[in-house]
Amino acid sequence: MEPIIIVHGGAGDIPQSRVQGKLNGVKASVAAGQQILAQGGSALDAVEAAVVLMEKDEYFNAGYGSVLNLSGEVEMEASIMCGKNLDVGAVTLIKDFSHPISIAHKVLTNSPHSLLGGEGAKIFALGMGFSTVPPESLISENAKNALNDFLKHGEFGRTEIGIKDEGGVGTVGAVAVDCNCHVAVATSTGGMSGKAVGRIGDTPQIGSGTYADDNIGGVSTTGHGESILKYCLAHSIIKLMESGNDANTATKIAVDGMTNRLNNTAGAITLSKTGDVGINFSSNRMAWAYIKSNKIFYGIEKNEVHEEEYVSEKPSCK
Amino acid sequence: MEPIIIVHGGAGDIPQSRVQGKLNGVKASVAAGQQILAQGGSALDAVEAAVVLMEKDEYFNAGYGSVLNLSGEVEMEASIMCGKNLDVGAVTLIKDFSHPISIAHKVLTNSPHSLLGGEGAKIFALGMGFSTVPPESLISENAKNALNDFLKHGEFGRTEIGIKDEGGVGTVGAVAVDCNCHVAVATSTGGMSGKAVGRIGDTPQIGSGTYADDNIGGVSTTGHGESILKYCLAHSIIKLMESGNDANTATKIAVDGMTNRLNNTAGAITLSKTGDVGINFSSNRMAWAYIKSNKIFYGIEKNEVHEEEYVSEKPSCK
Repeated sequence: MEPIIIVHGGAGDIPQSRVQGKLNGVKASVAAGQQILAQGGSALDAVEAAVVLMEKDEYFNAGYGSVLNLSGEVEMEASIMCGKNLDVGAVTLIKDFSHPISIAHKVLTNSPHSLLGGEGAKIFALGMGFSTVPPESLISENAKNALNDFLKHGEFGRTEIGIKDEGGVGTVGAVAVDCNCHVAVATSTGGMSGKAVGRIGDTPQIGSGTYADDNIGGVSTTGHGESILKYCLAHSIIKLMESGNDANTATKIAVDGMTNRLNNTAGAITLSKTGDVGINFSSNRMAWAYIKSNKIFYGIEKNEVHEEEYVSEKPSCK
Repeated sequence: MEPIIIVHGGAGDIPQSRVQGKLNGVKASVAAGQQILAQGGSALDAVEAAVVLMEKDEYFNAGYGSVLNLSGEVEMEASIMCGKNLDVGAVTLIKDFSHPISIAHKVLTNSPHSLLGGEGAKIFALGMGFSTVPPESLISENAKNALNDFLKHGEFGRTEIGIKDEGGVGTVGAVAVDCNCHVAVATSTGGMSGKAVGRIGDTPQIGSGTYADDNIGGVSTTGHGESILKYCLAHSIIKLMESGNDANTATKIAVDGMTNRLNNTAGAITLSKTGDVGINFSSNRMAWAYIKSNKIFYGIEKNEVHEEEYVSEKPSCK
């Protein structure tokens, strides 16, 4: 089949000042992933590469530019899943590495475990050859401002509805199906501004932030983490596809179901195993992009789809 | 409705020497939970009380008697979920508290977050008035022996099939429906013998180790953690019940499905919202017990159900 990749740059009350930066970022990210797929690379490598680019970009709440916890620290988490055998790699409570998603990928390939946290994750990462960076080097001005805003007027669990939160949104994710019909999903985040030290959200929890199954498809989610994990949003979408819904219908039913039950918002990107696309968000905005048939599609507003020609190497395995 | 509670004491290659201790433990645990329900107490309080009793009991891998990580330390995790509003409390990487499930319950009631880990979980627990205990006070002889055995011949990810692992099994859990038709589930564990420092398993991941929804029912799982989380075992059982399967059929389909896909074993206990019981395990043994209509039912072998009269206060809300 023709390989395909879709990415998101986070759902939430994205202020106008950050719209263009996010759109530029998701377009660059999806192109990086698509290049790997076009050369016959694996879905796992493609989603990692797409997420790495967004972890470098301060317009997203992942890696550099992650939001800060109540102690003013970055605490990041990420997960990656392989739909062939359901293998998982995930990390949480990571403070001083640039690319949590790359450590998660190494957990998938080199650890008997699926999820490592805190000091144990650091020990594993150092053993795999990753280098620490000074924690303060991951902190952006925007993240500092977001924490200050939260400390002034923040209301927990409601970052996506009602108040503006400039830095608190922007979890990133990618879903790909490669030319061997393997599905992979990657998700990475800094969590929510002003979170308690030690707070773990939906991103490293499999079935909440991330799910991939070659028999069905893949999902990456973003939004209010505590609600996403209570609803098992990614797995709910997968199960709706398994029972016959197309990717877009399944994504809409589950995002609406979570929002109606828990009164917080979220978004998700979905691919079926055959490459059908699902995009839905109940938050005000969610940046997304995908590349298919030499076109790049992208958007950030509800009911908005931009479409441009995209010149790339021809997929080697079409 | 007549309230009901079911508990498990872990699935795996339970050696004969520990069978009677586990049976005594699950019977005492389920009775402790039933007393709360019979007095009109909540399902949340009942499942916490049932799990607390097993956390105290060295026959189970939770609280005192938890298995040891590669550094010879206890690192525990627990989760509790309320089916009414899907509220969750969970903790992970807890080293020096006697009852992780009680801290998890406080996360549910007193934190804006759902899952706290490591130092952050400790700070929260201390703030809620929990006292630390010396970490070595949680270590049993059996757990030390299990780590030594693992270091001699252990093979990761296969503790439940093929090799005997005396201390590596025994996650505990409870599922209850109270007289107000509210469902709650609690699960607590020390993980697996010889796990890496910082390893987080299925127990604190919602949809893997624990799930509760008043509209459907509740599930607590046990077994090979990495497989359970890859399969989202608890949520898979919930979704099978939602689509019309009874509790026992749903539990069997999902446990078999996980075992066939991932070649590791697990078990689960399930209640539907109307109190129908589901029990299934693909491991050699799993201790379980439930109380219904003044009888206590319990077992540990496949296709074995013991039944005894059980004298209790009459449920106040029958």
